[in-house]
Amino acid sequence: MPMFSVKKVSPLGRRGTVQTNHGPIETPFFFPVATAGAMRGITHADLKDLQAQALLCNTYHLHLHPGEEVIASAGGLHSFIGWNRPILTDSGGYQVFSLRGLRHISDRGVEFRAHTDGSSHFLGPVEATQIQWKLGADIIMCFDECPPSTASRREIETAVDRTLRWAKVCKETHEKLGKSGTGELGNLKSKPLLFGIVQGGLHVDLRRKCAEELQSIGFDGYALGGLAVGESEDEMLAVLREVTPLLPEDQPRYLMGVGVIHQLKACVSLGIDMFDCVLPMRIARHGTILLSDGTEIRITNAKFKEDHAPIDPASPSDFSRTHTRSYLHHLFHVNERLAETIACKQNLGVTLKMMRDLRTKMDSL
Amino acid sequence: MPMFSVKKVSPLGRRGTVQTNHGPIETPFFFPVATAGAMRGITHADLKDLQAQALLCNTYHLHLHPGEEVIASAGGLHSFIGWNRPILTDSGGYQVFSLRGLRHISDRGVEFRAHTDGSSHFLGPVEATQIQWKLGADIIMCFDECPPSTASRREIETAVDRTLRWAKVCKETHEKLGKSGTGELGNLKSKPLLFGIVQGGLHVDLRRKCAEELQSIGFDGYALGGLAVGESEDEMLAVLREVTPLLPEDQPRYLMGVGVIHQLKACVSLGIDMFDCVLPMRIARHGTILLSDGTEIRITNAKFKEDHAPIDPASPSDFSRTHTRSYLHHLFHVNERLAETIACKQNLGVTLKMMRDLRTKMDSL
Repeated sequence: MPMFSVKKVSPLGRRGTVQTNHGPIETPFFFPVATAGAMRGITHADLKDLQAQALLCNTYHLHLHPGEEVIASAGGLHSFIGWNRPILTDSGGYQVFSLRGLRHISDRGVEFRAHTDGSSHFLGPVEATQIQWKLGADIIMCFDECPPSTASRREIETAVDRTLRWAKVCKETHEKLGKSGTGELGNLKSKPLLFGIVQGGLHVDLRRKCAEELQSIGFDGYALGGLAVGESEDEMLAVLREVTPLLPEDQPRYLMGVGVIHQLKACVSLGIDMFDCVLPMRIARHGTILLSDGTEIRITNAKFKEDHAPIDPASPSDFSRTHTRSYLHHLFHVNERLAETIACKQNLGVTLKMMRDLRTKMDSL
Repeated sequence: MPMFSVKKVSPLGRRGTVQTNHGPIETPFFFPVATAGAMRGITHADLKDLQAQALLCNTYHLHLHPGEEVIASAGGLHSFIGWNRPILTDSGGYQVFSLRGLRHISDRGVEFRAHTDGSSHFLGPVEATQIQWKLGADIIMCFDECPPSTASRREIETAVDRTLRWAKVCKETHEKLGKSGTGELGNLKSKPLLFGIVQGGLHVDLRRKCAEELQSIGFDGYALGGLAVGESEDEMLAVLREVTPLLPEDQPRYLMGVGVIHQLKACVSLGIDMFDCVLPMRIARHGTILLSDGTEIRITNAKFKEDHAPIDPASPSDFSRTHTRSYLHHLFHVNERLAETIACKQNLGVTLKMMRDLRTKMDSL
């Protein structure tokens, strides 16, 4: 079975399947983000109820606690968190580069102090790859440099060069770990999939250079990083229009950090297969509820105090079909945690169902 | 069908059934406390999964938000919170008496400022009864004065007298609301059950006086208040030994605020039928986990960092059968909310199962 197969290319986008150590993922799809191995507000049972196919966990957080050694001793991340479907781990790059004032960057990687307890750590392409192997994720990511979208062209150029040098080291480390006889497979059935990350900000020539050189190193899939970080939607889509066609047709394409429903649809139509984002959950926690019909409501608004209609009668979330808007409004007002649970399950449910519906629509074309 | 029937009196305690507007409750049993209409950390589905028979909600909190009028307009508390099994509401007395510095007590009731926004409110026996009717609970409580257990005999004497005067007003208000033709039944099938509350601190003569005078007013059931509030376990059990026999044999007896497993068993053996307490959930949130075998563990203890055994393999909670101690330790360490969910479902599950097992044991005697 090929690692990635495209069943159909349609005006709506590509319809495919990614094969992983923990089974297939139907594309296009969206990763719920379980930072330290848990979602905020909802349980694993809720995730399965919403038909989540896969989870994203953050290497930075899991490295700080409980540490990859503890997770390996539990039999890997799937056993540790009790999730038997595919998991992707990021490289930790995005998190350590965000630790302004707490980190020092060199060509070998990033020395940083943990945001939690100030302890000293070092993360570079070698370490990030080794840690992700120990965690036992199904899809792992190259350690990249993520400059802010407001950075100068010069800074972004430097970041692209470093990202490419590090991508090479990640690939070498990955190959070395994968050599039979080293015993490094640990809890893995077979090698995880390693994805390269295309950086380059809004500069199409830098994106092109990065995409081409990553392909000459050779990865299982390609991600686009450094988008949805402050630029306008038009700017983002313009970059995608130029860069997506430069990526191999027979490999998965992953746009990191996009989670707005209409943007997901637009990006799928431009050829993206995978997404992750904390946004649906973050807005949920602040009372913005996505509805099945594509609209959204601010449930904390006073007009919902006596609105005894179900939150969303057509919802993929059982909570939203049975509980009323007035009840959810009340729970937010009195700061009850059930508010977060109902809101998060709703927003994630609507996002996942939109992707599922998109796949069904493509299948029927 | 009688409102309360005792099937058996055994050395373990009484085995009975309370009939309510929302169906029967098998006794002895324990009320989970859903203060403002929601449990902290767990969902209604979790409650049903744990076979919770009934819920307790707090009148004080629901009066402040969303208010009894909003709840009545939703069709009552059961519709509003989406729970179709029996609900007991307390009178709000305990909460408003705890608002030291924010309240003024008179013979008519308590004028107080809300702990949330400082708004002014008045709660007395008339208001508490009217509000509980509007909420539409199945079992409602008299508005009583709850002095601290450290209060002087004189203060407790005054509180008993006031509690008795107020009990009479509650009963009169209740009867008036229940008169056919007034339309006050609102969302209710028939009148709720009204329970009197025996106060008197650790003074058996005051408890006796209170118990006797409440019975001459006449209630559907009798609660014991002002226990488990600082006195020793021996002192509490000594009061129960004296006072429980003074309560009618053919009516339910409710001990408020007790939730420690071995105390529940001891109190059932002394003739108590009903309990409520936030304790199992509160200790859960701080990392103390009750196990099925009657022991408990501090999951935040370092020794659980690499303990990859299930939290409690025989648990009534699915989470604790599938998730490991190392994972729960990790979730507490990184402050993930799933920690609270797993811990609360575990502790409530163990408490409810202990009561269920006790009923089964009595049935088989």
